[in-house]
Amino acid sequence: MGNEMSNGTSNENTYPVSSRGPADHDVRDQILHAATEHFSQYGYVKTTVSDLAKAIGFSKAYIYKFFPSKQVIGEMICANCLREIEAEVRAAIDEAERPPEKLRRMFKAIVEASVRLFFRDQKLYEIAASAASERWQAALAYEERMQQLLQDVLQQGRLSGDFERKTPLDETVMAIYLVIRPYLNPLLLQHSFDHASDASAQLSSLVLRSLSP
Amino acid sequence: MGNEMSNGTSNENTYPVSSRGPADHDVRDQILHAATEHFSQYGYVKTTVSDLAKAIGFSKAYIYKFFPSKQVIGEMICANCLREIEAEVRAAIDEAERPPEKLRRMFKAIVEASVRLFFRDQKLYEIAASAASERWQAALAYEERMQQLLQDVLQQGRLSGDFERKTPLDETVMAIYLVIRPYLNPLLLQHSFDHASDASAQLSSLVLRSLSP
Repeated sequence: MGNEMSNGTSNENTYPVSSRGPADHDVRDQILHAATEHFSQYGYVKTTVSDLAKAIGFSKAYIYKFFPSKQVIGEMICANCLREIEAEVRAAIDEAERPPEKLRRMFKAIVEASVRLFFRDQKLYEIAASAASERWQAALAYEERMQQLLQDVLQQGRLSGDFERKTPLDETVMAIYLVIRPYLNPLLLQHSFDHASDASAQLSSLVLRSLSP
Repeated sequence: MGNEMSNGTSNENTYPVSSRGPADHDVRDQILHAATEHFSQYGYVKTTVSDLAKAIGFSKAYIYKFFPSKQVIGEMICANCLREIEAEVRAAIDEAERPPEKLRRMFKAIVEASVRLFFRDQKLYEIAASAASERWQAALAYEERMQQLLQDVLQQGRLSGDFERKTPLDETVMAIYLVIRPYLNPLLLQHSFDHASDASAQLSSLVLRSLSP
């Protein structure tokens, strides 16, 4: 498992490859789509690139033309998954008018979208868990974007006079991020289910009390 | 593994047992002490009661006279471990004069004592993790006692005028408990190490801001 890269596949690198550009892009998407299906049925950890190649009907070498490793495929699937959560969270924030309500909806959307996306499909959860525990780039970038999103809402609330301004902004961002982290990070979320349904309301109320000017 | 209870050990129940009382108590302690040593060296999950019996030099039946299963031994070790954390947290709270400082020290002691006790010894961590994931009585009782401790500090702060009184007390307790939970629960704590050193200060400051009258 995971050693396929060295299994002498280099001689098979003669598969027809279409001209660079849109066509490559299509193949890449096709592989990603098929891999998502396959992982979600058989699991990420157990599947090798050989399994994947067989299932899709491509040669292993052909898949390696587009993706250097299974992790890169997993990382791209994971990035898509995290982008989906992020889009849902952004939409929830945009729906609200005032910063306090934006923050409340942000918490609610984070919990709901994470629970749905990570656990709708137990097998896809494996990818997200690998991403979080091995600190893949996709997971780190997601954490940063969520912190930035939080900072934007806090800044708006400071400008509007809804939130206090005495505490340094970066300290406030980090502390609130730590509060919501158990529901953002799939490794923590799996142990926070019992509390997830009430958590977003209780925690956002606490955070809003902490932000009152 | 775990099936030893049914392996026909009932016929061996003729080992000498001293009179009930202090002597039994001593043997129980002796077994617990030896089991703690053994688990911490070879791990809780992998060790069977047979292994334990061999290591201690008692028969399996003799151990079963005092403990009905490996889990009960694990549960008692775990309970001791959690009592140790609790004692440290109580001592930290008692050292402080005013409720806000009590809360700050409570957070600090929870993070420090948990990190030290659960991870000083990677193998003993297994027991604590089993307790948390299988919701052993020892772990549930510990959670309840920590919530009670938190409630006591909050009530003192409401009486002294340091903390706001508008929010229902049980809501405040639960929300603050959710904030500190990633550092109390060993399953969450293992994924919160990167943040543990700053977390107690940042989170207690946030919580204290939320409690200001």
